[in-house]
Amino acid sequence: MKIPFTRRKITVETRSPRSVPTSLQEVVQIGTPRAMALWLASTYNDERDTQLGQLNREQSLSLTDLLTPESAEELLESVSPHTAFAFLKFLPVQMAAGLLESLDSDEAARIVDLMNEDERQRILRAMENSHSALVRGLLAWPEDSAASRMRPDFLHVGPEATIQDAVDAARGDPDDLAEGVFVTTDGKAGQIVHGWLSPSALVLGRRAHPVTTQMTPVSRLEQWAIKPLDDQEKVSFRARERDADVIPVMDGKYLLGVISSDTVADILQEEATEDAERQGGSAPLDLPYLQASPILLWSKRVVWLLVLFAGAMYTGNVMQAFQDELEAVVALSFFVPLLIGTGGNVATQITTTLIRAMGMGEVHLRDLGRVIWKESRTGLLTAITMATAGAIRAWTLGVAGEVVLTVVLALAAIVLWSALIASILPLLLRRLGVDPAVVSGPMISTIVDGTGLLIYFTVAQTVISGL
Amino acid sequence: MKIPFTRRKITVETRSPRSVPTSLQEVVQIGTPRAMALWLASTYNDERDTQLGQLNREQSLSLTDLLTPESAEELLESVSPHTAFAFLKFLPVQMAAGLLESLDSDEAARIVDLMNEDERQRILRAMENSHSALVRGLLAWPEDSAASRMRPDFLHVGPEATIQDAVDAARGDPDDLAEGVFVTTDGKAGQIVHGWLSPSALVLGRRAHPVTTQMTPVSRLEQWAIKPLDDQEKVSFRARERDADVIPVMDGKYLLGVISSDTVADILQEEATEDAERQGGSAPLDLPYLQASPILLWSKRVVWLLVLFAGAMYTGNVMQAFQDELEAVVALSFFVPLLIGTGGNVATQITTTLIRAMGMGEVHLRDLGRVIWKESRTGLLTAITMATAGAIRAWTLGVAGEVVLTVVLALAAIVLWSALIASILPLLLRRLGVDPAVVSGPMISTIVDGTGLLIYFTVAQTVISGL
Repeated sequence: MKIPFTRRKITVETRSPRSVPTSLQEVVQIGTPRAMALWLASTYNDERDTQLGQLNREQSLSLTDLLTPESAEELLESVSPHTAFAFLKFLPVQMAAGLLESLDSDEAARIVDLMNEDERQRILRAMENSHSALVRGLLAWPEDSAASRMRPDFLHVGPEATIQDAVDAARGDPDDLAEGVFVTTDGKAGQIVHGWLSPSALVLGRRAHPVTTQMTPVSRLEQWAIKPLDDQEKVSFRARERDADVIPVMDGKYLLGVISSDTVADILQEEATEDAERQGGSAPLDLPYLQASPILLWSKRVVWLLVLFAGAMYTGNVMQAFQDELEAVVALSFFVPLLIGTGGNVATQITTTLIRAMGMGEVHLRDLGRVIWKESRTGLLTAITMATAGAIRAWTLGVAGEVVLTVVLALAAIVLWSALIASILPLLLRRLGVDPAVVSGPMISTIVDGTGLLIYFTVAQTVISGL
Repeated sequence: MKIPFTRRKITVETRSPRSVPTSLQEVVQIGTPRAMALWLASTYNDERDTQLGQLNREQSLSLTDLLTPESAEELLESVSPHTAFAFLKFLPVQMAAGLLESLDSDEAARIVDLMNEDERQRILRAMENSHSALVRGLLAWPEDSAASRMRPDFLHVGPEATIQDAVDAARGDPDDLAEGVFVTTDGKAGQIVHGWLSPSALVLGRRAHPVTTQMTPVSRLEQWAIKPLDDQEKVSFRARERDADVIPVMDGKYLLGVISSDTVADILQEEATEDAERQGGSAPLDLPYLQASPILLWSKRVVWLLVLFAGAMYTGNVMQAFQDELEAVVALSFFVPLLIGTGGNVATQITTTLIRAMGMGEVHLRDLGRVIWKESRTGLLTAITMATAGAIRAWTLGVAGEVVLTVVLALAAIVLWSALIASILPLLLRRLGVDPAVVSGPMISTIVDGTGLLIYFTVAQTVISGL
């Protein structure tokens, strides 16, 4: 609920449905700022993103005539940086620079970051120095660092100020008020922070009182601050650990900037998307799906596919090693896909749950014993269930009794074995300092495929007479 | 950043490391509220959850002596409801009821919801009526409804009030200020809402001005409000669509309650966990992993395992149908795990990416054509890559030239086919009104396993002379 107060200029009555344009193309046709405002008031972020992406060059140029600094900010900050970048590419550089100036510096930097070196220099030169300096500063931080996602222009007052002074400071830049007002003094290398006034403190504090009596002291603030070079992933940890929705970026006693609640939410979402993509066995796209080219999709996927292929190659050796058994009892091969598939499924269920639980901080290294004990008992129940199902299946396929027995025993052993490997592996990797999220579903399936075959043929040799 | 201002009573200097207790058990040994405050100031949510869960009955009883209403609220609202529930079970009912009274009603309801009917009635009777009435009201809503997660006691003033009146109202309950102050009138069935004052509006609005000039009007508010019986999943959609971090729950013109930013963050996280578990091929646990019993884990997993097992059974029929070919060229069976594994991996990569993109609103039904076109080209590149890898592998295994050719052609066909199925299926399910998230990694692998075998043996029949 950011929009309201400060942007009330563009709040309009939306009750008369006849006058509300249903698409951005219609807004361009109507050609009034009012149509733009009505459209903004009635659309969600997803629709805005899609519809802005559908405009051609001519429509994009017409649209800029309808944008006020306020509506430009609302529009461009609610779509993805990729969509905003594609839109700005249609415009003359002066016009694009003007629109970037109406954005918060962190949002502007996200868009400029997508440009090539040439475009970047041209548009930064076209922007006012006060704006471009902030954007340049942000772009200088390493990619994926916390500092690259912060807003460097936070509200601040001196320690001698009163609450009234802090409110007056906020009046000049009401958009930044959601991040509160910091109490700082000028230091050699920037702003030395002494405390923080939350929006609540500004509402409830007596206006004549000094800020120092109402502020959250820096000792407290440091507990949810992060360092500029911390990975942006740490922002999501910190937000969860501290129920914080605004994260200060501090370098020693200096406050470099603030990560706003919108950005915290964005980072949480990006991290969740990356996790999902990794669990599915591909490298993260870092781009909205529809904007990814086939070459990019291929490159993000093929590395893992080849790794998994190489890992799965030994299944061929296992099968070859049991060539005699396969030739003697060809019915054994009928159950290969079913058996290794079930082992893979059991293992995937466990690793996905464990990796998520470890990511959420619910499971730690020290819990290894509890995890194995829990999964052994669960695995036993599952093994009994699946062995029963396997017996029924082998019987319906009409194979020899010895093969039925082999399938039943092998299924139980494969389920138990897969459960054990899957519950140990993620914790073992964490112990070795490797991110357990590399164990995707496809990877754990591949790992238990070959061992499952070994179990199967070993059981067959024991059970079937003459093998 | 909720804690600061209103809870500054328990803010203490934490600079002297010698005095900071490192565990909750140490706090109980020291036995002073100051030790408790120091521990709270120096621990994160995860640690609090773990350490509170490790206390035995006696330690839990000692701990309650050290808790103030403020520290009880901070402690119990930062751990999972399951952990808080287990802690309260150790305490006499009067004491547990007293602690629940210090929590916000929505947090208290989450804990009471875990009790059985008997425990629930006993503890609600032991609570003050004003508190228990709110909790009872929340428990009456269906599970997973938006209303079951709201806080029904929001701050409100009448439309004739001034900003100063709204600030005074907030002073009585400063914790609720983060959700702003609503402008309402009494209606027949509750509070009729006219507008909303954000914390920023309360900071910047002139104190003598009427609230009606500063409020976000109800027409705007309705756009990010949700209905009481909406699924709680809709809360996460709405928060993303509107960049909102506080969601009002409205029934027509009536305001029933507010979903706070903490709860919005909780719901986002719960939904992400459910998605991860579903993608891993099991039903969501709805419980922290370490607190799930083997029986519960088994029941959440075994249904899908059996469904997948049933779905994979036809791989046996396919293998049996090609029994003659397998007997003639046993080397064909060597490549079965590798080929169907690769098909499953390709398909899993695509469905995971697509389902996430659809969940984020990046991909819609109308994009089906674009998705297929994109994935066909990507699939072609991938098919060429994997066929090359397959040629190398078959060659190193020393099988006949015809088998090598079969493997190469079959791999290319299987990759393309899997890519196509995986890109169509999620969108097709959405079209049929089914949540595409049911297509887990294990499920799509199972689907393409059998068809992959069909492709493989058909290619073999064509390529290998005499089959």
